[in-house]
Amino acid sequence: MAVALAAGKLRNLKALTDDRGRFTMMAIDQRGSLLSALGKVLGRPAADIGYEELAATKEVITRVLSPYGSAVLTDPEYGIPASAKAIPGHVGLLVACEATGYDRAGANGKERLSKLVPGWSAEKTARCGANAVKLLVYYNPDASEDTRRHQQELVRRVGEDAARWGLAFLLELVSYPLAEPSADSSEFARRKPELVARSAQEFSKPEYQVDVLKLEFPANLKFAREYCRGVFDRMDREPVYALDQVRDYCRRVNEAAALPWVILSAGVDIAEFLVEVELATAAGASGFLCGRAIWKNAVSFYPDLGAMEANLSTEGVYNFVRCNAAAQMALPWHCHQRFGGLGNVEVANAGPGWAQAF
Amino acid sequence: MAVALAAGKLRNLKALTDDRGRFTMMAIDQRGSLLSALGKVLGRPAADIGYEELAATKEVITRVLSPYGSAVLTDPEYGIPASAKAIPGHVGLLVACEATGYDRAGANGKERLSKLVPGWSAEKTARCGANAVKLLVYYNPDASEDTRRHQQELVRRVGEDAARWGLAFLLELVSYPLAEPSADSSEFARRKPELVARSAQEFSKPEYQVDVLKLEFPANLKFAREYCRGVFDRMDREPVYALDQVRDYCRRVNEAAALPWVILSAGVDIAEFLVEVELATAAGASGFLCGRAIWKNAVSFYPDLGAMEANLSTEGVYNFVRCNAAAQMALPWHCHQRFGGLGNVEVANAGPGWAQAF
Repeated sequence: MAVALAAGKLRNLKALTDDRGRFTMMAIDQRGSLLSALGKVLGRPAADIGYEELAATKEVITRVLSPYGSAVLTDPEYGIPASAKAIPGHVGLLVACEATGYDRAGANGKERLSKLVPGWSAEKTARCGANAVKLLVYYNPDASEDTRRHQQELVRRVGEDAARWGLAFLLELVSYPLAEPSADSSEFARRKPELVARSAQEFSKPEYQVDVLKLEFPANLKFAREYCRGVFDRMDREPVYALDQVRDYCRRVNEAAALPWVILSAGVDIAEFLVEVELATAAGASGFLCGRAIWKNAVSFYPDLGAMEANLSTEGVYNFVRCNAAAQMALPWHCHQRFGGLGNVEVANAGPGWAQAF
Repeated sequence: MAVALAAGKLRNLKALTDDRGRFTMMAIDQRGSLLSALGKVLGRPAADIGYEELAATKEVITRVLSPYGSAVLTDPEYGIPASAKAIPGHVGLLVACEATGYDRAGANGKERLSKLVPGWSAEKTARCGANAVKLLVYYNPDASEDTRRHQQELVRRVGEDAARWGLAFLLELVSYPLAEPSADSSEFARRKPELVARSAQEFSKPEYQVDVLKLEFPANLKFAREYCRGVFDRMDREPVYALDQVRDYCRRVNEAAALPWVILSAGVDIAEFLVEVELATAAGASGFLCGRAIWKNAVSFYPDLGAMEANLSTEGVYNFVRCNAAAQMALPWHCHQRFGGLGNVEVANAGPGWAQAF
């Protein structure tokens, strides 16, 4: 049975993927976390890092690495003005629309409310020649109804706006601890599989008009039996699950997601991320959208942009190429159960009068 | 000195060109001329050719050949709905906005007025994920003031509309005989160099907001001394100029065009077009936008779509690859005197507050 897609959505999904329909994308839309990282390197508070410093950092990362991916995600405040020129024309472009950070909410102040970049819009995203709107929302399905409603309403609004302009809509869901002591605790590691699957299920509903879900890995591999003895960061942790269980969690996420999905890197190191990409794509993910795991080591060379470029051109490129290799098994977006192959996809309302009715 | 470009214009110009900044583009936006060609093959009047017949023809040509170019030009009536799916995501997309044909005007009815596809717009062009608006205007600088004003006003309007949506604007200028007996006469061949240069000069003015000119070859090579003895079509003609003069005409066009320009194929055979591409790019053209010279032989196999595909996959691909080779010397768009190299190009108003002011 044919699945109709708006001409713009179809064109833009193709622009974000490689010729086989896989997402191999780099994120350089970080604002708050990158300001903190630069501050740490310079021994200055993040608030003292200037606009031009962050813009120059983004420019060099984008220039060196974007040619290796199917698409690049950047932000409209620093990224587009500083580095639109640095992105090859055949590489897709996603623009983040959420403001960095979140507002605290809920009875204990642990819940998180997302908000948009003031004065930015899907219309502007289209006007700058981008292919997709990306929205990050913090989401915990056990948060208060007020908080969930707020986040859901935000997603719905951005989904409508993206559809209005024919843009692809990539929704990033990031969970956070409510009852658990911290995001790095065994308690939260234990909750993760369920949080990721339930959130994916919620935002797969057609009312949100999401095209691609950007999901956390549904487990914390640092708490996996096979990796918990310091494999990734030399810290000993208690085992919470085994890799076979983690494979199950990935399959459950894949079943919960009624849409193509990609895996995010959330600041983990490259060795851990490569395992995540292999496990996720083996379970049905359509690729990755990876930021710091690829380029974070280059930041330590700031403000020596030449040394950063040298690191990006060697270690950064190597990391990216390894991610691409790990994603070889990724499911082409159009082979997801939603579509069942490119042969089933057609332009909505194709036929005489299409141009007038569009 | 830096040249500021709107973020969308910059992104979209990159999307239309190859990694070195050259335009190697295919046109499949023909409507009237392709209906006539199909009618001729089937022995039916063009008016009897159905929507689905033209759409299917465009789909197979687009599917087989678009992967070989930096961008493809199609039309919004048949091309986008029938073949958006067939264009690789890394290949740029231009959409024609003029209605096929023209209205007659002027004292003797020989002047031509262009018009737009009803119900289509630059906004729709942006919404379908395209990178550029293409407008064809018939133009003779010696036409009546009314006719010139009409055509100039149309270009100005489309230029504003394209800029409003950050789209690149490619303007195609096609001359036509007024006093001369026909377009294939020696008289018109003699006039051609001047007509092409004067038209290019007019529409290079910033008020039209054109980004790329799509120009006729500024001579009729069938009347060149070296080719007039039937080299291209076995017909003898009188010599009107020598190749060295033709090289001068190309240089004159290049001087008259204050913008990057590409050469169009106007239905000539591939052998003639390859010479035109070499001469034009040697004089400073930034590439080509070629339709029938690449694929017209495939049309003779209609309605056998399998035979068409076989011809396109062999002869069509061969023609396209030869055009690409002939355009190796093309000037990257950003190396045109308007820009002076990519190093001089910057996003307009880059800096703090860009996202809000954009």
